[in-house]
Amino acid sequence: MDEKLLSQIPHIGEINHRGAYVKAPAKHTDTFLERYSRENKVLPSLEDAIRATGLKDGMTISFHHHFRGGDHVVNQVVDKLAEMGFHNLTLAASSLAAVHAPLIEHIKNGVITHIETSGLRGELAEQVSRGLMDCPVVFRSHGGRAAAIRSGELHIDVAFLGAPSCDPYGNANGYSREEGGTIACGSMGYARTDAEYADKVVILTNKLVGYPNAPWAIPEDNVDYIVMMEDIGDPKGIMSGATRYTKNPKELLIAQTAAQVIDAAGYFYDGFSMQMGSGGASLATARFLRDMMLERKIHCRFALGGITGQIAAMHEEGLIDRILDVQSFDLDAAHSLKLNRFHHQISATYYASFLSAAAVDQLDFVILSALEIDTDFNVNVLTGSDGVIRGAIGGHPDTAAGASLSVVVAPLTRGRIPCVIDHVNTVVTPGEVVDVVVTDQGVAVNPRRPEVAKKLRKAGIHVYTIQELRDKALALVGRPDPIRYKDRVVGVVMYRDNTIIDVIRQIEE
Amino acid sequence: MDEKLLSQIPHIGEINHRGAYVKAPAKHTDTFLERYSRENKVLPSLEDAIRATGLKDGMTISFHHHFRGGDHVVNQVVDKLAEMGFHNLTLAASSLAAVHAPLIEHIKNGVITHIETSGLRGELAEQVSRGLMDCPVVFRSHGGRAAAIRSGELHIDVAFLGAPSCDPYGNANGYSREEGGTIACGSMGYARTDAEYADKVVILTNKLVGYPNAPWAIPEDNVDYIVMMEDIGDPKGIMSGATRYTKNPKELLIAQTAAQVIDAAGYFYDGFSMQMGSGGASLATARFLRDMMLERKIHCRFALGGITGQIAAMHEEGLIDRILDVQSFDLDAAHSLKLNRFHHQISATYYASFLSAAAVDQLDFVILSALEIDTDFNVNVLTGSDGVIRGAIGGHPDTAAGASLSVVVAPLTRGRIPCVIDHVNTVVTPGEVVDVVVTDQGVAVNPRRPEVAKKLRKAGIHVYTIQELRDKALALVGRPDPIRYKDRVVGVVMYRDNTIIDVIRQIEE
Repeated sequence: MDEKLLSQIPHIGEINHRGAYVKAPAKHTDTFLERYSRENKVLPSLEDAIRATGLKDGMTISFHHHFRGGDHVVNQVVDKLAEMGFHNLTLAASSLAAVHAPLIEHIKNGVITHIETSGLRGELAEQVSRGLMDCPVVFRSHGGRAAAIRSGELHIDVAFLGAPSCDPYGNANGYSREEGGTIACGSMGYARTDAEYADKVVILTNKLVGYPNAPWAIPEDNVDYIVMMEDIGDPKGIMSGATRYTKNPKELLIAQTAAQVIDAAGYFYDGFSMQMGSGGASLATARFLRDMMLERKIHCRFALGGITGQIAAMHEEGLIDRILDVQSFDLDAAHSLKLNRFHHQISATYYASFLSAAAVDQLDFVILSALEIDTDFNVNVLTGSDGVIRGAIGGHPDTAAGASLSVVVAPLTRGRIPCVIDHVNTVVTPGEVVDVVVTDQGVAVNPRRPEVAKKLRKAGIHVYTIQELRDKALALVGRPDPIRYKDRVVGVVMYRDNTIIDVIRQIEE
Repeated sequence: MDEKLLSQIPHIGEINHRGAYVKAPAKHTDTFLERYSRENKVLPSLEDAIRATGLKDGMTISFHHHFRGGDHVVNQVVDKLAEMGFHNLTLAASSLAAVHAPLIEHIKNGVITHIETSGLRGELAEQVSRGLMDCPVVFRSHGGRAAAIRSGELHIDVAFLGAPSCDPYGNANGYSREEGGTIACGSMGYARTDAEYADKVVILTNKLVGYPNAPWAIPEDNVDYIVMMEDIGDPKGIMSGATRYTKNPKELLIAQTAAQVIDAAGYFYDGFSMQMGSGGASLATARFLRDMMLERKIHCRFALGGITGQIAAMHEEGLIDRILDVQSFDLDAAHSLKLNRFHHQISATYYASFLSAAAVDQLDFVILSALEIDTDFNVNVLTGSDGVIRGAIGGHPDTAAGASLSVVVAPLTRGRIPCVIDHVNTVVTPGEVVDVVVTDQGVAVNPRRPEVAKKLRKAGIHVYTIQELRDKALALVGRPDPIRYKDRVVGVVMYRDNTIIDVIRQIEE
């Protein structure tokens, strides 16, 4: 045809003068069933998959933490990368746990030279705090990480994603609606963002199911290779200590007070929305809210975030209309996601990215834990009173900023350690977005929210100043010696918009 | 902190020396319920939304065709654009129907100067065939369009997407699981690709529902603005003529033969996969397959594509394990998508893009209609025997290429018009991917598939050559006069890999 005419057509691609379909794949003629075992994305070994991705020294690999303390993926993959002679890799995980201590050797050997994560715990955290790595660890919130991946600030070359079910073409999920067992982690919300943006995606699964593995968390068009592994994780580890059901009277008192605060502040009404962070007191708050909901015949429009079996049970008894689940905290929650048609899996982006309106922005309230709170209402969930890293940012700053009322719950003291102090070791969530602090010894309201303080007083709740709470804490346990740090920075803490909010320095011993 | 140290951290973004969250949105304090009616993406009018998108002359706007003949979105939006004085726009719709004849005036007035679509029908198609537009219309398959959007070959500036349900933050769907009625189009598969890649996305809805509108086809983070409109479509038009249930004996004979062919060729086994194209004989084939499934106690692993109530009914009676639905052909299919936990909505990309392994590649067989088939097995579904455009590519070439056995069904003659001829007017699906032709007067097998011909003969099915079928057709109705065309090209037909496979010329009258 007339080239001149063609040239006036917008959007016209390459012209193939030889005929049709030079780029499209050739037609196959065997049956779907026959093809299954031959033409698919399953590679014989992890090593084959690594080679196929074209991974090179200096690149960035990513992992999710949906198996939490039971994760067996990160260590196996990095062991293999070390064995294959890779060096100078950046490991970008949605979070890391105590189970990942074997990474220490790989850091010492130069296999891993940089880490991005939401948190660090255990021996790896100890050693990072003592100067293990030349380059500081970058800590991001779940929403911040999703935003950084989308903006390209955090570019993932190869994502290695464990999945409790996957079909031969890559439709992967944290559970399976097929008959027969698999370990289940429920939602794979954090992994979905990695799968969408990584250059190459490898699914590691212990359970290959029939195509199509519907519903899926990760669609086949996001997946390049699949590796069958005997062991991707320990189901027992999936229900981690962070979500244990508390019987601690101090925590129960805090939870009860938190529920009263939410009610008094005017955020407990028919159709409210909520999120419960991990931690005993935070999770226990749902129990008190449940009683209040039954008593007043009101319901929750949606519960968001890390989801527990307790939230799932409230959904099943009709108290919560919708669940938006970015991470299933326990097996009951995973089971509910598998069964309930209004329990929905969402991605990290949908959950909390500041780059677009996210679900956190629709929260009435969130209950969040803290290691330390200071008199500016800044919150630390990342470093202990000894300055050592022992926690995770998670969705803390995302939900505190998004929710109309952010309630931070903590005991006033832990053993001989005060939890309300002058200056937190590490600012993770800035005081500007922290509204109420609830301790077992009293409640403080951020002066930025005078209307909340007024409402609480009207409801008969005594409101202390944050300074009064600090004084009470110090009176009980005394002022701790300041932590001695070296100059060297071992961690950089990013706020949810990926600006640096604080740094973590090497501890002096 | 030390700038030099910072500079050695990979992936580190902007450093904010002033403190935290300069980019993240400010915290709000009103309840979710109060905020609902004020802070959302709903704009008062279509005009406001158009202005907000920053649309300019020369840009590309997109639409979906999930309301088919009942669509009221395209005309209303383009009327408004004309009223606002826009010119020189490219209209990229997933398809257009007879209801879009009012576009003719907007083309004459220079508001729309280029069209991309899967098909054209009615007066608009007639006039395009007679030289209405200076620039040829670009016709793409559903998979080709998805690939072109993803590759950037088709860049959408603003997508205007009608949705039967949407919440104030943009979670949109083709139905609603909430109580209370809405028109339902079921799957919004084609719209999902537009929403993901367009620079700006406007949802037009007649039903604003509570947040979160879960499940959603389009997530809120893909949506910029929402406009409430009294009328986005006519539910009656959603079930278009293309999916009528046939009682035509000729069509039933073809359908029965097609079912026998599939069986004889070895693609009818326990766990097979299938797609039925639109058209009476194609849809009727499912009925014969159903009887065979019940008789032999075999089931279908998944049914793909445009889904009818008939497929949904077979799913509900346990004959089909999974439905992957890119487009619900009727209200029964839409109802099933709303209710059934193994009836899944998929995007155009997932369905048919050649850029990654797509669901069409896992088909055992597809039954497809045709206007014309030629002795090279090329198929035309786009232009009539008079050379006038009167159809749509749809997923025809995508599924023919993807399926192990593509069966094209057509009557040997339509009135005085032969359907098997020497050369099709317009090559839409190349003969290389068409395996079997089934007519009411006999079956032909592509010489590229000798093993299929052999199996059919063994099963007692007489196999004609395609030339014999042509001769039969010509013997019945005679050889039609050749269509007289002008040199001018009015349409360009793209194969699924977005190379040009044919052109459509202006008819000479």
